Amino acid sequence: MNVGMIGFGKTGRAVASVLLESEKTCLKWVVRGSNVLQHRSVPEFLGIQSDEPGLIYSKDEFNIEQLIELQPVDVIVDFSSTQGLEYYGDIAATHGVTIISAVSQYEQSNLDHLRALSEKTVVMHSPNITLGINFLMIAAKVLKNIAPHTDIEIIEEHFKTKPEVSGTARIIAKKLDVPDDQIKTIRAGGIIGVHEVLFGFPYQTVRLKHESIAREAFGNGILFAIENLKNKPNGLYSMEDLLIPYFDAAI
Amino acid sequence: MNVGMIGFGKTGRAVASVLLESEKTCLKWVVRGSNVLQHRSVPEFLGIQSDEPGLIYSKDEFNIEQLIELQPVDVIVDFSSTQGLEYYGDIAATHGVTIISAVSQYEQSNLDHLRALSEKTVVMHSPNITLGINFLMIAAKVLKNIAPHTDIEIIEEHFKTKPEVSGTARIIAKKLDVPDDQIKTIRAGGIIGVHEVLFGFPYQTVRLKHESIAREAFGNGILFAIENLKNKPNGLYSMEDLLIPYFDAAI
Amino acid sequence: MNVGMIGFGKTGRAVASVLLESEKTCLKWVVRGSNVLQHRSVPEFLGIQSDEPGLIYSKDEFNIEQLIELQPVDVIVDFSSTQGLEYYGDIAATHGVTIISAVSQYEQSNLDHLRALSEKTVVMHSPNITLGINFLMIAAKVLKNIAPHTDIEIIEEHFKTKPEVSGTARIIAKKLDVPDDQIKTIRAGGIIGVHEVLFGFPYQTVRLKHESIAREAFGNGILFAIENLKNKPNGLYSMEDLLIPYFDAAI
Amino acid sequence: MNVGMIGFGKTGRAVASVLLESEKTCLKWVVRGSNVLQHRSVPEFLGIQSDEPGLIYSKDEFNIEQLIELQPVDVIVDFSSTQGLEYYGDIAATHGVTIISAVSQYEQSNLDHLRALSEKTVVMHSPNITLGINFLMIAAKVLKNIAPHTDIEIIEEHFKTKPEVSGTARIIAKKLDVPDDQIKTIRAGGIIGVHEVLFGFPYQTVRLKHESIAREAFGNGILFAIENLKNKPNGLYSMEDLLIPYFDAAI
Repeated sequence: MNVGMIGFGKTGRAVASVLLESEKTCLKWVVRGSNVLQHRSVPEFLGIQSDEPGLIYSKDEFNIEQLIELQPVDVIVDFSSTQGLEYYGDIAATHGVTIISAVSQYEQSNLDHLRALSEKTVVMHSPNITLGINFLMIAAKVLKNIAPHTDIEIIEEHFKTKPEVSGTARIIAKKLDVPDDQIKTIRAGGIIGVHEVLFGFPYQTVRLKHESIAREAFGNGILFAIENLKNKPNGLYSMEDLLIPYFDAAI
Repeated sequence: MNVGMIGFGKTGRAVASVLLESEKTCLKWVVRGSNVLQHRSVPEFLGIQSDEPGLIYSKDEFNIEQLIELQPVDVIVDFSSTQGLEYYGDIAATHGVTIISAVSQYEQSNLDHLRALSEKTVVMHSPNITLGINFLMIAAKVLKNIAPHTDIEIIEEHFKTKPEVSGTARIIAKKLDVPDDQIKTIRAGGIIGVHEVLFGFPYQTVRLKHESIAREAFGNGILFAIENLKNKPNGLYSMEDLLIPYFDAAI
Repeated sequence: MNVGMIGFGKTGRAVASVLLESEKTCLKWVVRGSNVLQHRSVPEFLGIQSDEPGLIYSKDEFNIEQLIELQPVDVIVDFSSTQGLEYYGDIAATHGVTIISAVSQYEQSNLDHLRALSEKTVVMHSPNITLGINFLMIAAKVLKNIAPHTDIEIIEEHFKTKPEVSGTARIIAKKLDVPDDQIKTIRAGGIIGVHEVLFGFPYQTVRLKHESIAREAFGNGILFAIENLKNKPNGLYSMEDLLIPYFDAAI
Repeated sequence: MNVGMIGFGKTGRAVASVLLESEKTCLKWVVRGSNVLQHRSVPEFLGIQSDEPGLIYSKDEFNIEQLIELQPVDVIVDFSSTQGLEYYGDIAATHGVTIISAVSQYEQSNLDHLRALSEKTVVMHSPNITLGINFLMIAAKVLKNIAPHTDIEIIEEHFKTKPEVSGTARIIAKKLDVPDDQIKTIRAGGIIGVHEVLFGFPYQTVRLKHESIAREAFGNGILFAIENLKNKPNGLYSMEDLLIPYFDAAI
């Protein structure tokens, strides 16, 4: 699968490194807002041995239509900001390119745009595109369904300077219909990221816990998404949609 | 639901206390091998305020047919040993009484017996009848299905004097097709019981963890089973069979 | 060592069971406010095989002077309430009986009373008389001293119905000079009691964690105190005072 | 304090980055076996804004005497291999330069060499020079001293490809006089490094846990050592020696 990326910040770079190391994907190019790294190649910049081109362009250099025609891709992976979608969305959809967006700050208008695009191509949106967190959310929903009156607490730990309650913790709380004051927030030192959903039964406790080691985890989520969106009909998918068949198959 | 119990060891007593405190069940009687507590009542013996009879009989006093006719029950709950089933199995099945056995040491002949009985009545067998452990086993199978090449380690912690690798840990290992040497056994002090299934991804870790607080957890598992076996057709069920619909409903 | 106990609630009973099982102590009697169990013996009541008398008296039956003269003890262990001290304090001190009080709700006047008594006998007061918690508090103070700018969070987990922030967590916070809003309180199901002091360094995390299994832990703390107060000069001691020599000896 | 470094592998680089960011140290130079990065500067190579020179030399370019005379340092920090010491040891000691070695594979002859050097200068050796691990080892020794009959288990978790039982876990076991089979080894995915010393009491559990986030933790250990070796008399020190005064001061 030929892949183009939009956005090349810290997370984008980590994801690019995973795509380069995967044999299932070929990273053709990256488009970013800034022109600082223009015309360098991702493998060279990241110090990864790879034959994949991975050329870095700035947004102003090409319009996306030219780029897609010159260097066609099957999938566009978006780790940029809310503006990214405006740049590539319509053209990508028209050309039948699969869109996978991991942007977390979308407003309703962006989500509406995604939905409109999903009539013409396969679109996926996931604000925390790791396998672990998405599995954990579904598993927690199942356990709440089994034991609806169990006490639930959500504990999230991050580095001291992270300012707010973790967005992922808020999403978990919302999915479990748990009020936000049952999220307990730990901020200390350099903790990368821990999310725990604790189910307190009268005589037993179940803890579902996710620990982040590095941003590259998002790259593995992207690989999973690319693999599982193959041959899907047009439509708007979430990570949950892709995971559910594995629940069915396992049980 | 009127309930009779077979077996009244430490776990049987804890389960009986949960049944007495539930409004959904009425504990009619307990049959045990020994005649030490004969004719005492479970509420009085355990110091629980309850109007339920809960009379304690020894196996030699009645045959089960007399008992069922004098004090009919809907469900027999078995926390005895492999011998229990011979005592009550055939009569219970003939009378259409639901059988829930939590005996863990059954041999193949006992399992064959259970299966035969399940043609005449609803039968359930679960060697660790807690919601938490059974949920955890299914959830772990799902995650292994999603990420088949992830490293799995099973860690179990128990009190110092527990002699062997935990039977529950072995069952988890078998269900996940993980070799027994990936079970790591901690023995220290008075730890009641912890089971953790650790999934090691390259850039993230998922931990599914169950902590036992007290044997009464088995009682809550029994209540769940009684509730969810209602109106089921004759057949042999596992805890997994009862949990799976909740996975489907949640997703 | 001959021991008398004041108070026989849930914790008192657990402590009594540990004293009965220890070969180093002989439980002579228990005095309690209520006269419900009057004249029963602790071994019989708790179902423990023991030759120790452990007779239960009510406060109104004897004054403590008579009791001490009839059945002398070396140590009085107090798990009652603030009123207990008034009952036995002065007489015990006059007779040179060591006083170990684990009452946690003392007001300043009670603490002043204890201090006055400590001029005449050996007195110890510890509101959470477990080895684990007291070790953890000293160890945490040491680590804060080593790394004063490290982020500290205190996490405490207890059963759902525990109404307030744990008193032990507040004491830890005070000892570490950490504001109370850095105590994160988890309330769920039947969790017995967990206290964790988390030190977040930029590139590493240290967690000091104490998990309660049962109230009997207080009994082991009492045994340790009895052993370590032997031959001490009159004075008011804390658990910390008794533990510090072990820090010195180890290092 | 002017610092020279020997060794510039993965850990050496992480340590260098911490030294560059500290205002208390100035990284003058790095000597390494290979000549690959010869004459580049550490700040430039690591992409860190800094005025410190941090020039990279190969071992063959200068002998250490020339280097020390041209660019004098107060401390030499060694993250190389057993050969490093032969290169710089005698000259450094003669010039009164403090030596801090974090090399873990020393044989007895190397340790003897260090001891001989410590008659002429301040020498420190620590095979795991993090504050967290060293604190944890002392704290665990204290707790074992308080409760000598408590069950101890050491649990260490690392990435799947780490071949052997962690050296740090072995050192902990040795210090606690615990047989190696009480080290339980977890290998999964990309776990950076977790060490837990579990103390199992009959009615409570204490867990002392260290989690590594990044190699830079060694850099903070080096800074602590440099600070605490200042004005010390000549002699051979361990991290434990430097931490013990903080135990005394806290208690």
